[in-house]
Amino acid sequence: MVRLIISGCNGRMGRAVEAICTAEPDVEIVAGFDLLGAGEREFPVFASPADFRGEADVVVDFSSPAALNALLHFARSRRIPLVLCTTGYLPEQLSAIDAAARQIPIFRSANMSFGVNVLLDLVRRAAAVLGERYDVEIVERHHNKKLDAPSGTALMLAEAAADGLSDTPEYVYERQSIRRARQAHEIGISSVRGGGIVGDHEVLFAGRDEVIELRHSALSREVFASGAVKAARFLAGIDAPGLYSMADLVGQFK
Amino acid sequence: MVRLIISGCNGRMGRAVEAICTAEPDVEIVAGFDLLGAGEREFPVFASPADFRGEADVVVDFSSPAALNALLHFARSRRIPLVLCTTGYLPEQLSAIDAAARQIPIFRSANMSFGVNVLLDLVRRAAAVLGERYDVEIVERHHNKKLDAPSGTALMLAEAAADGLSDTPEYVYERQSIRRARQAHEIGISSVRGGGIVGDHEVLFAGRDEVIELRHSALSREVFASGAVKAARFLAGIDAPGLYSMADLVGQFK
Amino acid sequence: MVRLIISGCNGRMGRAVEAICTAEPDVEIVAGFDLLGAGEREFPVFASPADFRGEADVVVDFSSPAALNALLHFARSRRIPLVLCTTGYLPEQLSAIDAAARQIPIFRSANMSFGVNVLLDLVRRAAAVLGERYDVEIVERHHNKKLDAPSGTALMLAEAAADGLSDTPEYVYERQSIRRARQAHEIGISSVRGGGIVGDHEVLFAGRDEVIELRHSALSREVFASGAVKAARFLAGIDAPGLYSMADLVGQFK
Amino acid sequence: MVRLIISGCNGRMGRAVEAICTAEPDVEIVAGFDLLGAGEREFPVFASPADFRGEADVVVDFSSPAALNALLHFARSRRIPLVLCTTGYLPEQLSAIDAAARQIPIFRSANMSFGVNVLLDLVRRAAAVLGERYDVEIVERHHNKKLDAPSGTALMLAEAAADGLSDTPEYVYERQSIRRARQAHEIGISSVRGGGIVGDHEVLFAGRDEVIELRHSALSREVFASGAVKAARFLAGIDAPGLYSMADLVGQFK
Repeated sequence: MVRLIISGCNGRMGRAVEAICTAEPDVEIVAGFDLLGAGEREFPVFASPADFRGEADVVVDFSSPAALNALLHFARSRRIPLVLCTTGYLPEQLSAIDAAARQIPIFRSANMSFGVNVLLDLVRRAAAVLGERYDVEIVERHHNKKLDAPSGTALMLAEAAADGLSDTPEYVYERQSIRRARQAHEIGISSVRGGGIVGDHEVLFAGRDEVIELRHSALSREVFASGAVKAARFLAGIDAPGLYSMADLVGQFK
Repeated sequence: MVRLIISGCNGRMGRAVEAICTAEPDVEIVAGFDLLGAGEREFPVFASPADFRGEADVVVDFSSPAALNALLHFARSRRIPLVLCTTGYLPEQLSAIDAAARQIPIFRSANMSFGVNVLLDLVRRAAAVLGERYDVEIVERHHNKKLDAPSGTALMLAEAAADGLSDTPEYVYERQSIRRARQAHEIGISSVRGGGIVGDHEVLFAGRDEVIELRHSALSREVFASGAVKAARFLAGIDAPGLYSMADLVGQFK
Repeated sequence: MVRLIISGCNGRMGRAVEAICTAEPDVEIVAGFDLLGAGEREFPVFASPADFRGEADVVVDFSSPAALNALLHFARSRRIPLVLCTTGYLPEQLSAIDAAARQIPIFRSANMSFGVNVLLDLVRRAAAVLGERYDVEIVERHHNKKLDAPSGTALMLAEAAADGLSDTPEYVYERQSIRRARQAHEIGISSVRGGGIVGDHEVLFAGRDEVIELRHSALSREVFASGAVKAARFLAGIDAPGLYSMADLVGQFK
Repeated sequence: MVRLIISGCNGRMGRAVEAICTAEPDVEIVAGFDLLGAGEREFPVFASPADFRGEADVVVDFSSPAALNALLHFARSRRIPLVLCTTGYLPEQLSAIDAAARQIPIFRSANMSFGVNVLLDLVRRAAAVLGERYDVEIVERHHNKKLDAPSGTALMLAEAAADGLSDTPEYVYERQSIRRARQAHEIGISSVRGGGIVGDHEVLFAGRDEVIELRHSALSREVFASGAVKAARFLAGIDAPGLYSMADLVGQFK
């Protein structure tokens, strides 16, 4: 049984973590932390981590950078591993996280989706085997409100694919202004935007007579909550202090 | 029974037309024309159309612009409909075609694939129904030797989709240099290039809660030969002179 | 401005309707009905329709069969069009709906997704044009909790495609036990089940040299709420009594 | 430079091997073998391997089982590695191959497509990492002339995926006759048949909030010739006798 604390339990992602844990027989939510509202839900909720006196195996945090100090203090003093899913930390906060990771296990990842990290691993593998004779192209799709392009994940995938190329790759974001045949060291990256698409990433390896496509589709934004629970389960079984990421979680199955 | 002549019968597309006709019980190849080589195949081959004395219902031409004059003369004097699949005509040749089309039925289309023209029709229809609340995006994929981007077909698809929008659409070929949310009147067009991909075109209509995708995949470059035989069958049944295109062929089923 | 009442406003779909309307500038929620709880939300909520005294242009119902009688009485006496999205009516309730539709406009559809109904229309059109030389196959994908297979929508799509065939089609649900080539009048229907897939439907028209794929993907189960709001907007503009469906809504754009 | 002999050089696959080798700067075709016709092409063609007196690094065979004896004798006596792409051997011929593989390197694989074997490797890897919480489903698509279903490759993919499951998997070929939710140890295998589809295989790993799809599409039937040339290049660099397969070729990049 993994005894889990949800930090930021009143937010949308905190509630998604709760929904996932409720469906897992071997995970028990022992408490919630939320700056805004102490009280009683299916579990006791504390405005400050310091108020919690019980036992726990891991904390999953989807709160805000403002909650970091109290959280790190709590986790360090109680020696409880910490899964940090909050984004937007200041440089000095990142240093504080690094320091804490010398005392307790801390999990933090650029992309908390388990599947995206599996895809990264498969792309790296496929690129190594298929080599330069297969052209790599990436197409990502997101909703029409997304501001940046390409997505950070698309760039991570391009980097993973580039590991398999001997030449330095050239990322090509459009071909309309160029009139020439594709060159072997290009990696095309296309960004599609429309409607409410949650997030799809597709990596093509196109050969002379065959195409291999590796694709990840997020079905809901709760995919990060799923990843966080997987990370919590992983971290709860680890004793050694350190900074862990999804790559470690995926890698343990190798 | 459709009695068909293949002009350019020794070329790759001419041979593809032959292969398709052989599999059709109600099409008979009565002759071939080829500048380079008269002779005997499964059917008699003439270097010049004038040498053919038999009866025929339609000519399918996959030769070269150099063969046009003799071909038009033959078709006009014998009153035989003509399917022109050759590209690269000079302006004065296009005028000669227009003139001939006032005397006999002539078929000529920017894209000889039947399926692409069906897709154009479906996209026009979908755009009219789905309207402006569904974002239109196009992704086309071709082999790594293709020089231009986007494909001519992708632009035809964008135009067909734009018919359904009230605002003038803005074609967007890349989003990497822009940091802003998608705007309603954009039509994104992405070009993927790799390996030996024959030619795929995909049109997305992305709404808040649902996505409709319409996709055409060419399985082989013989798809144009298939379209030409469909056009020949269509033209063989037409008496009225005129310039016909795939849109007429698709439209007759409406 | 469309003044809208949400019946079943406290349920999941009622709340989804509310979320969609809030984002539409020309729709105003003037009241909610809910058997379980009168009270005040962003709009007044009544346990019984009879208690509402204001003006309204249309009612959208996502409640339960138990609420039908009061709802029909309200709509008929106040002459307000009704969009019924509730399922599971008894035969005598369906008769009561038919009777009411002789006095007021009522909207009811087997599938409330607008996009699925657009897909049905496109499939019918594609089948008519492509005819018998293109093999029709359907693949549907749903979450691992779905009990029935194939989905009702897949069967509706098969029927729409069959309109284009001259022979009576044979639906083929598996090919593992048969050792023979595909026959022209077959329509293959495959059901994929896995994880949390909301609902995808794909119709293939496979020809000798090209494949056309028409695909609908639901991004969330709120897609029916979206369709209901589209139906409400449509019905609010209709005076003539009658039973309307998504086919009418899609058809008005023809 | 790899000096290569094509056995069965006058057949369709032999010609495809020739076309591929011609485009590779470091492969030279030094001879062809063909029972039916000695003569001169771009390279000398011998009706019997024994007639060839030159030097060679590897033989690629796309002939027929009838040619095996002479081929094995030639390869063994001249100590030239052999890539066997012919199918339909009798049991005693398979034993003869095994015996020869104790003296020279011989390559033989159930599926000569390099990409399919890469896909098998990726599926095995993904199944190991994703484990039982992701439902595995396979969809394969082939032309309408294919007699068997599912394809042999689909079954190999199912087996590769099953390696990651702790329970014995149950292969499910249809769901229409069953009315129940999907069970965790099922692997659904669907067979789509239509038109001229060369061969597509798709493996889905469907989780609660995300789907990973791994897909292989053959662009032409020449994909096996491509694989054979890759195998030839691999085998030409090997000294140790033994029976090698695509798994060894893919595995060398690990």
